[in-house]
Amino acid sequence: MTAPTRRPGRRPGPTSSREDILAAARVLFGERGYDKASIRAIAREAGVDPALVHHFFGAKEELFAAAMEFPVDPGVFLPQVLSGPRSELGERLTRTFLRIWSDSRLRPQFIGILRSAATTEQGAALLREFITGTILARVAEALGTPRLNVTAAAAQMVGVVMLRYVLEVEPLASATEDELVALLAPTLQRYLGD
Amino acid sequence: MTAPTRRPGRRPGPTSSREDILAAARVLFGERGYDKASIRAIAREAGVDPALVHHFFGAKEELFAAAMEFPVDPGVFLPQVLSGPRSELGERLTRTFLRIWSDSRLRPQFIGILRSAATTEQGAALLREFITGTILARVAEALGTPRLNVTAAAAQMVGVVMLRYVLEVEPLASATEDELVALLAPTLQRYLGD
Repeated sequence: MTAPTRRPGRRPGPTSSREDILAAARVLFGERGYDKASIRAIAREAGVDPALVHHFFGAKEELFAAAMEFPVDPGVFLPQVLSGPRSELGERLTRTFLRIWSDSRLRPQFIGILRSAATTEQGAALLREFITGTILARVAEALGTPRLNVTAAAAQMVGVVMLRYVLEVEPLASATEDELVALLAPTLQRYLGD
Repeated sequence: MTAPTRRPGRRPGPTSSREDILAAARVLFGERGYDKASIRAIAREAGVDPALVHHFFGAKEELFAAAMEFPVDPGVFLPQVLSGPRSELGERLTRTFLRIWSDSRLRPQFIGILRSAATTEQGAALLREFITGTILARVAEALGTPRLNVTAAAAQMVGVVMLRYVLEVEPLASATEDELVALLAPTLQRYLGD
């Protein structure tokens, strides 16, 4: 690994570099959007060598997930959900989504992302870019579905999160996974199925 | 009108009474929920006579809408939407919802309610009570639909609001009313139709 260049006056060390990169990523993803914020520009903003960004975070998508503090990797769970019979896609998506959210270790982070998106411009920009650049693009491409349909499906699930986990509106908050699959899976299937 | 009793030390006058009532309503609706927060208790908390609460705000539902600063009266628009052919309910709901939100004078208030619900306990409690006590109860009763179905429909529309108006995710943010009706009306119809 080449030694990273640093801005003068910065305290060196891997922890500070890692945090500098994440801070720079949040600024540039928020300002320029996912596509236009290059690893090179983020490295420059952070005062480090681009190689160090790759060393810490791998690909741009992983850097983005880390910058958002997104607690699961869509590069892992989306391919699992999108593979398998297309006729059962709505059910697989609903179950996967509910299981990720039912994990009480992850939920505070997800809710934090949603809160920051609802209240700050940078939070909204980050979540918008994440949904657009990472989830919508990948799902629309894998399925050949119009992006508007994918956003309608995403809206259904974001609304379930708001009512079930943030506002805790009954009976949605206490409904079982199977009850919700019966209700929601046909909706996602209609938006995303053949 | 009888003169309201006041707490000692409060500055008298209709503006202060009105604000006191709204502040008391926010506290009690948030703490006790819509059903258990009585006009009498809210009047006591505000240090005024219950008759003054009725004088300013009419029924409890209108007081609640005012306490939330909810910019439209569900007592007016819901009966309009719920009447008419049941087979076209999904379309009527979708169009009404999108038209209310497309009003740029009202939208900041709606977004403010959503933001406060996403970030404060009192805001979450108020919106939960509003959705449960005012909208769900009325819709479920009028239609004879299970409440879980009504919450699923509400979740779809809350998610559309988050993605279209708060996060401004494309292509949802720029989609026309007709495009969204084609996509969303069948979903609401399935949740709420016969």
